[in-house]
Amino acid sequence: MNQLDYSSLAKTFEIYLQDHQLSGDPDSLYAPIRYINRMGGKRIRPVLLLMAYNQWYDDIAPALPAALALEYFHNFSLMHDDIMDEASLRRGIETVHIKFGRNLAILSGDAMLIKCFELLLEAGRKNNTDSAICSAMSSAALIICEGQQMDMDFELFESPSEQDYIEMIRKKTACLLGTSLKIGSLLAGASVEVAGILYNYGENIGIAFQIRDDILDVFGDTKLTGKHKGGDIIRGKKNFLYVHAYNSLSASGKTDFSKAYAAASTTGDINIILEMYKSLNVEANANHIQQHYLKQAMQSIDSLSFLNISALKSFSMELMTRDH
Amino acid sequence: MNQLDYSSLAKTFEIYLQDHQLSGDPDSLYAPIRYINRMGGKRIRPVLLLMAYNQWYDDIAPALPAALALEYFHNFSLMHDDIMDEASLRRGIETVHIKFGRNLAILSGDAMLIKCFELLLEAGRKNNTDSAICSAMSSAALIICEGQQMDMDFELFESPSEQDYIEMIRKKTACLLGTSLKIGSLLAGASVEVAGILYNYGENIGIAFQIRDDILDVFGDTKLTGKHKGGDIIRGKKNFLYVHAYNSLSASGKTDFSKAYAAASTTGDINIILEMYKSLNVEANANHIQQHYLKQAMQSIDSLSFLNISALKSFSMELMTRDH
Repeated sequence: MNQLDYSSLAKTFEIYLQDHQLSGDPDSLYAPIRYINRMGGKRIRPVLLLMAYNQWYDDIAPALPAALALEYFHNFSLMHDDIMDEASLRRGIETVHIKFGRNLAILSGDAMLIKCFELLLEAGRKNNTDSAICSAMSSAALIICEGQQMDMDFELFESPSEQDYIEMIRKKTACLLGTSLKIGSLLAGASVEVAGILYNYGENIGIAFQIRDDILDVFGDTKLTGKHKGGDIIRGKKNFLYVHAYNSLSASGKTDFSKAYAAASTTGDINIILEMYKSLNVEANANHIQQHYLKQAMQSIDSLSFLNISALKSFSMELMTRDH
Repeated sequence: MNQLDYSSLAKTFEIYLQDHQLSGDPDSLYAPIRYINRMGGKRIRPVLLLMAYNQWYDDIAPALPAALALEYFHNFSLMHDDIMDEASLRRGIETVHIKFGRNLAILSGDAMLIKCFELLLEAGRKNNTDSAICSAMSSAALIICEGQQMDMDFELFESPSEQDYIEMIRKKTACLLGTSLKIGSLLAGASVEVAGILYNYGENIGIAFQIRDDILDVFGDTKLTGKHKGGDIIRGKKNFLYVHAYNSLSASGKTDFSKAYAAASTTGDINIILEMYKSLNVEANANHIQQHYLKQAMQSIDSLSFLNISALKSFSMELMTRDH
């Protein structure tokens, strides 16, 4: 099998996406969809779907509508999450609800979610996998909504545990990566068991990936990440580093830390948090947990000896060693 | 075939709906869904679906998950529309975004839309109609989003035509009634042609139904409708009566009328609009248009001589002669 790598799949997908931009009547409903599709991004979910499909078929063209469905789902969730989180910028440009107004961000987001199912039906119709891939999507989609709700509730938790945090990112972020691989393999005719193994791989990679993101937020090189150092701290976002530090402290330490975290607004404040993280060895511990999930991911696909999993493995290594 | 009537189908559906209320983790995501499901309503869409299915089968139990899917879709759209329209009351009680907050109304609405597809997949899996009914739903769902967008754009139109208005309500309201009948018949194994005829019937009934609603808004007996007289006028909502009156006037008359309509806020203001309507014979004209669509609906199902369409006919007569 001709194993296509990440960048070649991403390039193919990008062309397909831009060639299949939506329009309609009234076109005002579709302008925000074209806008968010043009915002760019790593296209991780469609690429994972194509990578899975490519395990069985050299020609990935029949999987492109399903890959687009996954990107539509992802962008639907970004559109709605940005309203809920009152985020005004994404990848350095205005979010949809700022540019087009809240109502359009709600309605165009709904349209993208609907389009996701329509595209999956289209992709699976030819070989009768439509029911299986739509079911995989609808189950995942509900879990992802639960994850977003947990994330919002999380900000109100008095004492979140690491387990709570992992469960939240499992639902909110990791589930969709697993689902991308699952749908790609089901579409290629894989058994439910094989699709399940690929799901587990994607889910574990997703957890590792999110923890890596949390580490880069404060320990990353801002020149490489392109983000403000400590963005999560400024937003008071309880990420893995926060949760880990919080749970390493004594009762009084917890109170002081959570107060300092909630009030942080300047570079000086961020540096105080950073010093606390250093004294608690938070980066090394977070790296350790990240490695644990990465290892779990790798182990899960080792059983798939009949597949050529080199593209998947190199993809996950790339994600995990990235500095941005 | 044992033709069940509206009230017996509505009763069966109501029990099924309340027996299948959702819960989950975090349950906060599901509380608004249970709340809106308990708000009541006429359950027109699930009943139409069951009525269509009942043309082929005495036992309507296999169609109940699909009926629930349609009610979920309808309630999803109410939840999101109420945010967009900033409506604080529905059926006399607080709307979801007022009671639970905007973020939950967005996210729980998303969950209901997802659940709609999940339920259709479940209903259709047993007899392999899942792909057909999900496709019918996704096509309709996009049209309904377009209708909602048209409705919002409509408020900004300088000179809306009757045709524009009919097209808007065809998409926003009538499409889902047609789709309910279409899905019910496809689920029962009907041909695409028969399902299409039932769709047309439902769509025409839906248009007639909406015009009737517009008439009742100002000409209805408030004791029977339970609504404020002229609610649409107070909200500046350009309904069929407005559009018809507007297009009957001279250029200067148009300007005066649209100014008076936009500024109306008191009972006295409503009465001035009402007098204009009377002088322009708006009620009779609106009734005439309503009858036209009702007739179209009836004619479309007359060709289905192999079906027992008495339940459908008595349902549409009931809708059309209702005074609330």
